[in-house]
Amino acid sequence: MSDRPIDVLNDAKGKRVLLRLKNKTEISGILQALDLHLNIWLDDAELTDGEEKIKLGKVLVRGDTIILASPVNE
Amino acid sequence: MSDRPIDVLNDAKGKRVLLRLKNKTEISGILQALDLHLNIWLDDAELTDGEEKIKLGKVLVRGDTIILASPVNE
Amino acid sequence: MSDRPIDVLNDAKGKRVLLRLKNKTEISGILQALDLHLNIWLDDAELTDGEEKIKLGKVLVRGDTIILASPVNE
Amino acid sequence: MSDRPIDVLNDAKGKRVLLRLKNKTEISGILQALDLHLNIWLDDAELTDGEEKIKLGKVLVRGDTIILASPVNE
Amino acid sequence: MSDRPIDVLNDAKGKRVLLRLKNKTEISGILQALDLHLNIWLDDAELTDGEEKIKLGKVLVRGDTIILASPVNE
Amino acid sequence: MSDRPIDVLNDAKGKRVLLRLKNKTEISGILQALDLHLNIWLDDAELTDGEEKIKLGKVLVRGDTIILASPVNE
Amino acid sequence: MSDRPIDVLNDAKGKRVLLRLKNKTEISGILQALDLHLNIWLDDAELTDGEEKIKLGKVLVRGDTIILASPVNE
Repeated sequence: MSDRPIDVLNDAKGKRVLLRLKNKTEISGILQALDLHLNIWLDDAELTDGEEKIKLGKVLVRGDTIILASPVNE
Repeated sequence: MSDRPIDVLNDAKGKRVLLRLKNKTEISGILQALDLHLNIWLDDAELTDGEEKIKLGKVLVRGDTIILASPVNE
Repeated sequence: MSDRPIDVLNDAKGKRVLLRLKNKTEISGILQALDLHLNIWLDDAELTDGEEKIKLGKVLVRGDTIILASPVNE
Repeated sequence: MSDRPIDVLNDAKGKRVLLRLKNKTEISGILQALDLHLNIWLDDAELTDGEEKIKLGKVLVRGDTIILASPVNE
Repeated sequence: MSDRPIDVLNDAKGKRVLLRLKNKTEISGILQALDLHLNIWLDDAELTDGEEKIKLGKVLVRGDTIILASPVNE
Repeated sequence: MSDRPIDVLNDAKGKRVLLRLKNKTEISGILQALDLHLNIWLDDAELTDGEEKIKLGKVLVRGDTIILASPVNE
Repeated sequence: MSDRPIDVLNDAKGKRVLLRLKNKTEISGILQALDLHLNIWLDDAELTDGEEKIKLGKVLVRGDTIILASPVNE
């Protein structure tokens, strides 16, 4: 058992993760990098806002807007 | 009697805990790791948003979105 | 007269306290531990949300969600 | 003339002060202790929420919920 | 030209200043003291909340509730 | 190319800048001083709140209420 | 693979980036500088607020208002 919560994301680098944001949108993308503030760099990212889906490509998501981050089983 | 509030969760590692979040959702899961900001890694997690239940699997919940965390008696 | 506001809670360890939270709920429970951020561990806790009462048992309440904490006269 | 804003409250220890909170409630009580975060311990406290008045007795009010604090002329 | 924004208030000590707060109220008073968090001690203070005016006398206003502070030309 | 975002404002000292605030108001004024928190001292300032325009003269705007700051081309 | 999320923006200096802000507006511009708080200096910036588009020219955007930043493929 790890002692650091962020390790659940460190193990997911190079894989797809799903972020739920405080503004009720979701973003999925390939995890490239993250830091202790939970700032996250995703590649091939897609934002879901209700019915709308928007391709973002590369994106930096600011940590303080994130509710949760979850690796996606593919 | 312990002097650190977080010890109530340290004693619950490997067991199921319930989180109530500021956005009025709840998440339950098996507690894997936590830190002093109350960032929490859960396995086998399930999010409850009103009537809706969503399986999340592994998830990192950002501490500043959490109102309370409670070990579940099973 | 003490110089630290938190001493009003340190004197209440092992006794019942009432917390009012920013989301308009209240939680009462037996105070087990607290820290300078006002993170609080309660035992035998009960959450009151309008008309609804929910038994929580052991719970960690995050300090930044708390408006006030008050020892209960029993 | 003092250089520290908090001295207006240090001079009011043992006297009644009025707090206006961000959630539109007011609390008055006898000032016992305060710190630089404006966490405040009041005795004989009473909360006013619109028409409703609630006796709180001893209470710790978290500094980040306070808009202003004012000594009461009695 | 000064390098510190707060000097515009340091020069106004002993004079009347107007504060606009995040909760859409205004407070005017004689500036007695301030700190780098913009916590402000006013004397002879008056709060304006829409049509209502309330005499506060001495008051400490918490810096994080302030949008702007402006010396009043009298 | 500079490495510090704040240099775009340092180059605008003595000139008019426009601030957009989180409360949907705008303030324009002559930039006198700023710090790393983006606390800003303006002279000859004017606040625009929908249709209403209010002359403020000298004003200190708290950095955490600012969304963006932009030099005005005159 | 980089270890710092902010590198996705460092690689985009001199190119156009799109910012989504917490107030539901968007700003695009040529990235000139950024810091670890995600404060960002853009040139040739344009703000989109629903149907409305506003030319801003040079602008400093405060980091804590940003949800995400994404390099634009041109």
